[in-house]
Amino acid sequence: MSNQTFTPKDPDYVARVQEVFANQQFMTLLGVEVGDISPGEVELILPYRKDITQQHEFVHAAAITAIADSACGGAALTLMEPGSEVLAVEFKVNLLSPAAGERFIARAKVIRPGKIITVCSAEVHAEQGESRKLVAAMQATMIAPPNLRIEPTN
Amino acid sequence: MSNQTFTPKDPDYVARVQEVFANQQFMTLLGVEVGDISPGEVELILPYRKDITQQHEFVHAAAITAIADSACGGAALTLMEPGSEVLAVEFKVNLLSPAAGERFIARAKVIRPGKIITVCSAEVHAEQGESRKLVAAMQATMIAPPNLRIEPTN
Amino acid sequence: MSNQTFTPKDPDYVARVQEVFANQQFMTLLGVEVGDISPGEVELILPYRKDITQQHEFVHAAAITAIADSACGGAALTLMEPGSEVLAVEFKVNLLSPAAGERFIARAKVIRPGKIITVCSAEVHAEQGESRKLVAAMQATMIAPPNLRIEPTN
Amino acid sequence: MSNQTFTPKDPDYVARVQEVFANQQFMTLLGVEVGDISPGEVELILPYRKDITQQHEFVHAAAITAIADSACGGAALTLMEPGSEVLAVEFKVNLLSPAAGERFIARAKVIRPGKIITVCSAEVHAEQGESRKLVAAMQATMIAPPNLRIEPTN
Repeated sequence: MSNQTFTPKDPDYVARVQEVFANQQFMTLLGVEVGDISPGEVELILPYRKDITQQHEFVHAAAITAIADSACGGAALTLMEPGSEVLAVEFKVNLLSPAAGERFIARAKVIRPGKIITVCSAEVHAEQGESRKLVAAMQATMIAPPNLRIEPTN
Repeated sequence: MSNQTFTPKDPDYVARVQEVFANQQFMTLLGVEVGDISPGEVELILPYRKDITQQHEFVHAAAITAIADSACGGAALTLMEPGSEVLAVEFKVNLLSPAAGERFIARAKVIRPGKIITVCSAEVHAEQGESRKLVAAMQATMIAPPNLRIEPTN
Repeated sequence: MSNQTFTPKDPDYVARVQEVFANQQFMTLLGVEVGDISPGEVELILPYRKDITQQHEFVHAAAITAIADSACGGAALTLMEPGSEVLAVEFKVNLLSPAAGERFIARAKVIRPGKIITVCSAEVHAEQGESRKLVAAMQATMIAPPNLRIEPTN
Repeated sequence: MSNQTFTPKDPDYVARVQEVFANQQFMTLLGVEVGDISPGEVELILPYRKDITQQHEFVHAAAITAIADSACGGAALTLMEPGSEVLAVEFKVNLLSPAAGERFIARAKVIRPGKIITVCSAEVHAEQGESRKLVAAMQATMIAPPNLRIEPTN
């Protein structure tokens, strides 16, 4: 629906978002790769692996949710001032189809930026060869807690 | 709030729920243990491990969400007829406090059972020694798809 | 994000959706007008009135939610077979800005159609003269209950 | 599940919550009555009226949502400092049964209080004579925006 253009407050926002993901051991455990990062948007890629599946060998809803949620956090972070932290207040996800495919791409975007609260949405698509299917949709609320501002170290 | 008592339609509901979790490789990857199972209620336990953390070494919101979501699915399954499957339609989770602790206990209960749609809620507490703190609350919608009924094999 | 094209199963879907809204007395009480209806999409318009406001004379969040939710139900209904009913299973709404304006436009679209479950999203914009502001975003799950199918009367 | 006891920061919290509801014209339009108010909990009552129904003469989901959402806002407000305002960031509601009855009682409670963010849950029951049925369950996120603090006038 709405498409907005955002101007990042931190010129190093790409490096900052990449660093956050590099420091999340859970993203490493899942095998998540960071894709495109632009102002207000982040893409995460989750390749299929058997050890992230549920009882029918589809990728577990919770792993799909993990990349959607994390992409939303990253999208919010692209618009924050240097030194800001972003935490998820809450999110809601609809699982739309079984997560069957070679890889899963979560694309999150900011729908309403804010000094304290930022609201994002995300879609996750399953890709198999040339085909592509929507498997999940999320709406998420992120917070940059005022007391969590960390001064840049340089 | 409301507390209801449920009568399971499958006398082997405990074994059935345990079997589903045993067959979810993602639960094994996370190190999730199955706790108490009773009609309409399931408990899952996630011990702290560094490889499921985010950048501040708290357990990642997505891992906390994973046990809440899976406990909701299990709680719904306790009330289903033999051979039924349960899938998550959607869920919403509030992350209430940083997930710091030795272990995390998700307790889910059915708040409205149904032939097709079952609605559940879950709470996740962090435990550290004797102390216990609420870290997440979820409300989830599960479906037993009519066309996914699997006939018991015996 | 994703844009899909849908083919309605009921050639009279526009009249059917209009009839449902005409029969909802609550829509009349709120002063809601039905806007564009197309396959998978419905628009509802809520003109500003003092008696639908909260303590700061902005339109009450619950009235904004009412048009978003109802537009989602209408959007799902556009894709149903003749005689189908649609009920809301659940929805989640983010209130993004105070609802200040002359009128409020909810636009809902189907993001995943289904025989039983249909998932929709909606945005509500406030309009004041030429200006337009996003005030709410919703993600909703609708059900066409199999036992609620009503046979067409002609 | 969890039950907590809260100490209000404003000795006049009951009068304050009543005043907010008295100033919400939308609550008057719906015919909402304020029930019990205690620290962290608020009850709202919606008597049945035909003009708040949908096409089957059940109360419209959006009217049920309105009392759940407003009760959550009230519950959060009971724990705020004098002069604070509370706005809904977002909420999610499951509609569990058709809203048939003489009156509808929304009971909301705080599940996690906070200086900025307060998370609440609510249940709505339909009452008909002596019978009582759960018709909706909500989980809601409220904010007391730091820049909206209003100094008490006395």
